[in-house]
Amino acid sequence: MGGWLYGLVGESPFPPMRAVIYRAVLVVCIVLSTAIAIIDTVHDAWVGVEEPVALAGGLFLAVLSADYILRLLHARSQRGEGESGLAAMARYALSPYGIFDFLAVVPFLVGEAAAMLPHDGETVFGILRFLKLARYSPALETLGVVVLHELRPLLAALFIMLILAISASTLLYFAERATNPNFASVPAAMWWAIVTLATVGYGDVVPITPLGKLLGSVVAVLGLCMFALPASILASGFSEEMKRQNFVSTWHLVSKVPFFARLQASQIAEIAGLLKLARAIKGEVLMREGDTGECMYFIVSGQVEVKGKAGTFILKNGDFFGEIALIERCPRTATVKAVSRCQLLILDARDFHKFVAHDHALLEVIWDTARARMAQAGHVSDKEKEPA
Amino acid sequence: MGGWLYGLVGESPFPPMRAVIYRAVLVVCIVLSTAIAIIDTVHDAWVGVEEPVALAGGLFLAVLSADYILRLLHARSQRGEGESGLAAMARYALSPYGIFDFLAVVPFLVGEAAAMLPHDGETVFGILRFLKLARYSPALETLGVVVLHELRPLLAALFIMLILAISASTLLYFAERATNPNFASVPAAMWWAIVTLATVGYGDVVPITPLGKLLGSVVAVLGLCMFALPASILASGFSEEMKRQNFVSTWHLVSKVPFFARLQASQIAEIAGLLKLARAIKGEVLMREGDTGECMYFIVSGQVEVKGKAGTFILKNGDFFGEIALIERCPRTATVKAVSRCQLLILDARDFHKFVAHDHALLEVIWDTARARMAQAGHVSDKEKEPA
Amino acid sequence: MGGWLYGLVGESPFPPMRAVIYRAVLVVCIVLSTAIAIIDTVHDAWVGVEEPVALAGGLFLAVLSADYILRLLHARSQRGEGESGLAAMARYALSPYGIFDFLAVVPFLVGEAAAMLPHDGETVFGILRFLKLARYSPALETLGVVVLHELRPLLAALFIMLILAISASTLLYFAERATNPNFASVPAAMWWAIVTLATVGYGDVVPITPLGKLLGSVVAVLGLCMFALPASILASGFSEEMKRQNFVSTWHLVSKVPFFARLQASQIAEIAGLLKLARAIKGEVLMREGDTGECMYFIVSGQVEVKGKAGTFILKNGDFFGEIALIERCPRTATVKAVSRCQLLILDARDFHKFVAHDHALLEVIWDTARARMAQAGHVSDKEKEPA
Amino acid sequence: MGGWLYGLVGESPFPPMRAVIYRAVLVVCIVLSTAIAIIDTVHDAWVGVEEPVALAGGLFLAVLSADYILRLLHARSQRGEGESGLAAMARYALSPYGIFDFLAVVPFLVGEAAAMLPHDGETVFGILRFLKLARYSPALETLGVVVLHELRPLLAALFIMLILAISASTLLYFAERATNPNFASVPAAMWWAIVTLATVGYGDVVPITPLGKLLGSVVAVLGLCMFALPASILASGFSEEMKRQNFVSTWHLVSKVPFFARLQASQIAEIAGLLKLARAIKGEVLMREGDTGECMYFIVSGQVEVKGKAGTFILKNGDFFGEIALIERCPRTATVKAVSRCQLLILDARDFHKFVAHDHALLEVIWDTARARMAQAGHVSDKEKEPA
Repeated sequence: MGGWLYGLVGESPFPPMRAVIYRAVLVVCIVLSTAIAIIDTVHDAWVGVEEPVALAGGLFLAVLSADYILRLLHARSQRGEGESGLAAMARYALSPYGIFDFLAVVPFLVGEAAAMLPHDGETVFGILRFLKLARYSPALETLGVVVLHELRPLLAALFIMLILAISASTLLYFAERATNPNFASVPAAMWWAIVTLATVGYGDVVPITPLGKLLGSVVAVLGLCMFALPASILASGFSEEMKRQNFVSTWHLVSKVPFFARLQASQIAEIAGLLKLARAIKGEVLMREGDTGECMYFIVSGQVEVKGKAGTFILKNGDFFGEIALIERCPRTATVKAVSRCQLLILDARDFHKFVAHDHALLEVIWDTARARMAQAGHVSDKEKEPA
Repeated sequence: MGGWLYGLVGESPFPPMRAVIYRAVLVVCIVLSTAIAIIDTVHDAWVGVEEPVALAGGLFLAVLSADYILRLLHARSQRGEGESGLAAMARYALSPYGIFDFLAVVPFLVGEAAAMLPHDGETVFGILRFLKLARYSPALETLGVVVLHELRPLLAALFIMLILAISASTLLYFAERATNPNFASVPAAMWWAIVTLATVGYGDVVPITPLGKLLGSVVAVLGLCMFALPASILASGFSEEMKRQNFVSTWHLVSKVPFFARLQASQIAEIAGLLKLARAIKGEVLMREGDTGECMYFIVSGQVEVKGKAGTFILKNGDFFGEIALIERCPRTATVKAVSRCQLLILDARDFHKFVAHDHALLEVIWDTARARMAQAGHVSDKEKEPA
Repeated sequence: MGGWLYGLVGESPFPPMRAVIYRAVLVVCIVLSTAIAIIDTVHDAWVGVEEPVALAGGLFLAVLSADYILRLLHARSQRGEGESGLAAMARYALSPYGIFDFLAVVPFLVGEAAAMLPHDGETVFGILRFLKLARYSPALETLGVVVLHELRPLLAALFIMLILAISASTLLYFAERATNPNFASVPAAMWWAIVTLATVGYGDVVPITPLGKLLGSVVAVLGLCMFALPASILASGFSEEMKRQNFVSTWHLVSKVPFFARLQASQIAEIAGLLKLARAIKGEVLMREGDTGECMYFIVSGQVEVKGKAGTFILKNGDFFGEIALIERCPRTATVKAVSRCQLLILDARDFHKFVAHDHALLEVIWDTARARMAQAGHVSDKEKEPA
Repeated sequence: MGGWLYGLVGESPFPPMRAVIYRAVLVVCIVLSTAIAIIDTVHDAWVGVEEPVALAGGLFLAVLSADYILRLLHARSQRGEGESGLAAMARYALSPYGIFDFLAVVPFLVGEAAAMLPHDGETVFGILRFLKLARYSPALETLGVVVLHELRPLLAALFIMLILAISASTLLYFAERATNPNFASVPAAMWWAIVTLATVGYGDVVPITPLGKLLGSVVAVLGLCMFALPASILASGFSEEMKRQNFVSTWHLVSKVPFFARLQASQIAEIAGLLKLARAIKGEVLMREGDTGECMYFIVSGQVEVKGKAGTFILKNGDFFGEIALIERCPRTATVKAVSRCQLLILDARDFHKFVAHDHALLEVIWDTARARMAQAGHVSDKEKEPA
């Protein structure tokens, strides 16, 4: 049953169909359940449809509760060597995802006991269900890593902003307090300062004296400058982290491609930084004869069918294709279709030439294959007799 | 007639004069027609000029309808081998541009039938005419490619923003609901949260309790940080895509310049990343004697006239000029004027030196040509006797 | 006593425990003291708690005063050769931090004299205490360096914005003055222009005529573009400066690692740009057996304990670890824990391979060490018999 | 008199003292004159001080008029070979700066005629005086170049924004028109759409229906994304252009340094991209013994005094200093002071090592000089006996 459960709730990169359906049902339940909890706070929102909504809410809660139990069982079936099933379940229950899953079903447990959860609690737990979606979005985890990594410059930027906010509010307090009740105290002025520095500008608190407006203009322009610091720190950290994650995952995939085995570690590291990972589903057309070719492909897993003038043949993991258009700068000479689910590594035209310029061994292998294929297709031009 | 039509509505990079006029007329018709549809929604906008406006509107509609018919005919004349004319027309009619063209003339078709289109429909279709302009702006297509390419990080950023918005609105709902009718429900609070996180800040919904203002300040600053994610993903994706498009188009042009034929594929790829494509109209002055020289030019097509101390001569496709100022770091020694429409590839001073530093063969060819030209002009300095 | 004082208030990178506590107490005093001064401006904020607040305020002031005296004494104990104690104290008192420290305790000195400081002065000096925190945030200093460095482009961007603001306000003044009392003069219109260009948009002053709205739209979009200039100048200057500071501090640390002694100056400069500085406290786990390895470590100071299949051993300053996972692309083969406070230099997988690709001598040293370690662990694979 | 005039109003990089004073007076006149024109539009701004203000205004106008006449004379004195004085003056008068200068003094000319300029004209011309400052800010010119260079992507971004604005306003018009008079027509809704997309958000027009708020949220988030396009295009174009200008100006300066004469053109281009131009006034201290050294200097023009353990000596154009701290990674071994106005080229530690790593000839020259200097200072360590 562990395997069946793993197929259902496990995090395999190629989930079986039942897991895909299960995920879809779960996501729909979570989204609708959260939506009900949110709309529930609107007075008279459900007039006339109270019953179906309550029924739907109960159903969603039941599904989420069942999911929690399944995941507990799954955790037990995945227990490590020498670990008791209870310990494994506790480990899941205390992990962030386990806690999110639990929070989502609290109303079920408490409600069952004696319907003693006040309405507010229901609202909160209903909305917290949204967190269950985090499981399917690695972005939050990435953001967490970035925030931790860039904590010092981020705090520095926030400290600068805090000093600006305190200074601006003190100045405006003295400039406006006599005539403007909105600046009657420094904390009141600070609300204005933060809203202005963040360039939100509600307009509920606005300086009215000429001096206040002059100072306010300076603060608005400063806000515009300060803006850049946390935003750009986070933005560059985020893109840096995504590149790093991509490098590491590609790096480990490269070793699965026999073709790269002949490369030295440092060359693999270089090419791993250039390759991009892509997936293709069965039947997907990867390139079409006559198109402009802008990249070549390496197959990590799966099979593709190549249909060109030289006939039709099958390529499988370790093979590459699409190199002729890069070397010859001609349109694609064949149409390539995935005949099973494929993992592919893509090498851009620019990166291809950047890499082969320094690595003649690799180029020659690609060249030999390309020439053999072109000869087969009766397509050898004069130029490729003198390889680069 | 196919050729004549192609000259009129086809997408050739060097359109004949009649196509330029046709495009201009069409763009004017589209813009004015959309403007009429927009201003039409203003009550009493046309008082006193109803008739001329209606006439103009009818005229524009007629022009757009004629354009649609011309494009259908053009599609038929461009039909592929073994394709029926009807199939070719259907292919155009179902392409995005074909649909945009059709939407623009719906009021004509329906109006002819029985003037049964309600006024709202007229407004909508009138405004939709604007989409016809997309044909002349490759930017939308580029944006589409970028959004598709960066879909995962964009969705991730939006998901983070959604979680922030839901959390912020739930917190503010509990903080403000007792005193502030604007936060009476979570959806109402969410309007505030999104307006604040996007740093728009209308000010129609604003926290009024001290706790609400404190939380609101945090949300405003978070919004300022979150801002960076989707914006920077799109911005870097956009500029990356524009560079890639430029590389591919330049890469294919380079092979048309005989001068580059001697280079190896990898060198062509390297220099193609450095070259910029430019166009010159007949009579345009490309450089003036005595100016500071900051780039050199390769001619892809067309002819230029070089007028210097060494006399006047003509250069044509495959030739290059402007290299003396780069090698000698002296002002331009000649004035160069396009004598026909030209396509040029431009190489910056910085990139020129970066490239020739690693490629002596190329430098020597440029050097020989430059020295020959300078000798002709009686301008050989001591330095160029020992080439780099 | 000088040493004891240095241990308390000095800026050593590894402060003793009493300094850490002292800092914490000081930061708490500063933050609470500023908070009291800020909240003090709210009418009736302390009703019912006047006495405890006044007491706390007095206490914080006393602590800050004591700190000022301690720092004066510390300055005297740190006096340079041939410098009088008074001169050393004056040097501290006139330094920026000395002035900040003094401003924080002004109310104490003046209040003692005759309670003659008006309430406003108390507010200002109370809030100024916040500046004392600057000592613990190097970010402000960095920002100052960046602003000085990028002064010309920043002023240029502000000048462009000023020209835009003046032009926009003049145009809007003529467009709106007849109907909109908010645009009755150019200075009034300028308040609107700056608030719009900074995308703050309070909404207290808004154009109401069609022409005014049209011009206002253009100004809003221009603001959005202009936004980019100062923000991006500061952002890129900030990150550039942080990189530079990191390079310089790493560069000087590298020479403390005997391992790098064999490298040439230019190689050290290259690797110093790739290394990142990190610190570990006693007991911190630096890597865990079985994890994916994404970097290697060099020890600048301190000791770590390596626990793997090959047994447990200690590494100390000059040693490196974590290289096996990078060379073999396998999971970590050992768990490493800091047994004392450590300074470490981290080299990323990507940078590792980038660097060793060009430097075979370094690679061979790392390789030899790695192979020896792996042999010890009975883990030598076929591949590493032919080193890169 | 031409030379004296050139010294006064000419654009020499090292202006004599009288030009500096003249510029300062002019800038003060322009700023105050513009300020008077702006404040003039405030009703009753000058009550009680009408006379002094009018006097000051007249004075400033007289100064600006005198400046215009001086510049006309200067233009005549600078006339080209075979050019008549009148033609030279006309050329200046019709240049952008000449037109700005003329616009500033229009009230003088017209006012003299018959005080027939209406008050509005006085306001406009008074404010236009601000444009005279453009002469002293090259930023506007740079921005113009960037806007021209990036015109296509900028227009593309604006087109995307226009399509968004039209679509958003049409949607909101249909969603809100029944209940919200602010959305009574598409143009009215477009005011809202642009204010929202630019994230200004005045709040004078806000959707009030649930559907309108939902659509409005989407538009706010889209605006936040779209924001990035024009802003990042301008920002990167601006910084690219500044780098290019710096490269070109440095590139031409490098040839003035005899030391670089031995380098090949491509090496000069490489190092020109790394060098930064700096100026020092007489008496400025460039480095202080004992400081951390982070760069070395090349002297383009001027003289410096080096005072160290090896005694005091003078270096002049073509010499370099500061290299010992970079090679030895030790603190500065001497104090260097400018004894005349100097132009210097600065090479960063990072760039120094990056460059010498590939260029042994240059390193050896620097090395020899450094060793000679250190020998003189009795400071030769063991390490420098084996140069890199």
